[in-house]
Amino acid sequence: MRNVFHDELNALVETLVEMTHLAESAMGRATTALLDADRELAETVISNDEAIDRLQRDLEERSLQLLARQQPVATDLRVVVTALRMSNSLERMGDLARHVAKLARLRHPAGVVPDESRALFLQMGQVAERIVAKAGSVIASRDVELAAAMELDDDEMDNLHRQVFEMLLSRKWQHPTEVAVDLTLLSRYYERYADHAVSVAKSVMFLVTGSHDAEDGLSLTG
Amino acid sequence: MRNVFHDELNALVETLVEMTHLAESAMGRATTALLDADRELAETVISNDEAIDRLQRDLEERSLQLLARQQPVATDLRVVVTALRMSNSLERMGDLARHVAKLARLRHPAGVVPDESRALFLQMGQVAERIVAKAGSVIASRDVELAAAMELDDDEMDNLHRQVFEMLLSRKWQHPTEVAVDLTLLSRYYERYADHAVSVAKSVMFLVTGSHDAEDGLSLTG
Repeated sequence: MRNVFHDELNALVETLVEMTHLAESAMGRATTALLDADRELAETVISNDEAIDRLQRDLEERSLQLLARQQPVATDLRVVVTALRMSNSLERMGDLARHVAKLARLRHPAGVVPDESRALFLQMGQVAERIVAKAGSVIASRDVELAAAMELDDDEMDNLHRQVFEMLLSRKWQHPTEVAVDLTLLSRYYERYADHAVSVAKSVMFLVTGSHDAEDGLSLTG
Repeated sequence: MRNVFHDELNALVETLVEMTHLAESAMGRATTALLDADRELAETVISNDEAIDRLQRDLEERSLQLLARQQPVATDLRVVVTALRMSNSLERMGDLARHVAKLARLRHPAGVVPDESRALFLQMGQVAERIVAKAGSVIASRDVELAAAMELDDDEMDNLHRQVFEMLLSRKWQHPTEVAVDLTLLSRYYERYADHAVSVAKSVMFLVTGSHDAEDGLSLTG
């Protein structure tokens, strides 16, 4: 029974890692669609979001079956419940990438981001891709140091988020209100995306370091 | 054993309902703090958010203990896992109320919302309070019709959200970019708050109507 359990647990972890790949690809493409006013790519991101949603529902169903059939306790139980929470965060990250793509589609063929703001949003996209890739590694490897280091990426994202506001509020800013509204929302989407990635990593850290059931096995995958 | 289980399940439901009360009070006060530029009230909302967070952590701990000790299956298992998800949504609603209060504090003693926008944000606050109150009733009563009717409140919130953007993008809009940025964020906070309330109600609906284990007892509280 324990082997079946750990096989199924490994499969959950693999699904979570796959979700990080999809969320990374979604935000990478959404950023490109945004900066290149690429409507087709935006459509791809929007329609592909269903794949992340489906993985999330599937993971939830398998987790419930796992809990019902295997009746795990202690750390094993926490791992399953934590996987459910992580899958919610990853599903939400997919939604946020879809929001970015939807804004690109809404303004097409015009661009959303004025020339002088492109560098900031390019960086936000890069930090987003980096932080979700690290979240995937943390899920797969239970690397607590990497998880802790993700705070630096999150700080970088928060800093970029602040820079967007400083830009919008500077005297040099001369664009219509519509542009300010769009950039405010975009910046918030990227910032929330990073928050969710950090929350995924924190869940793993808590499993590894904060559990009172260390003797039951520390690892996510058993 | 079953009685202990259902007592503990009832206690989880009571905690969820209490969380809706706190989230309702938080958003009600945050809206007042926002519209009256009431710094003291804003501080209260910000510091009280910890109470919702604590209830969420406490609910999570009790749910894990319940799963480990009582090993529920079928609907009972789904109820506990759903309670965990609902508590995450309610905790997040508290965060969104805190965000509104923080913006009120940030701009104090100035107001955030210009006179001609007050009516819209007052309505957003009212819809927010109404929808979370209904979410609380749905959790306590498993009233599927009430849950379905919450879509109308959510539509109303979405409509108000659109009206904020229309106002910001109209020719009559003459305020500095800072005000547009603030109102964009505020509007998004209220809209997300309503989304989370609807998601709580949908979780209850799924438990009641979508479960394949109807014969195990439909109710949330057993």
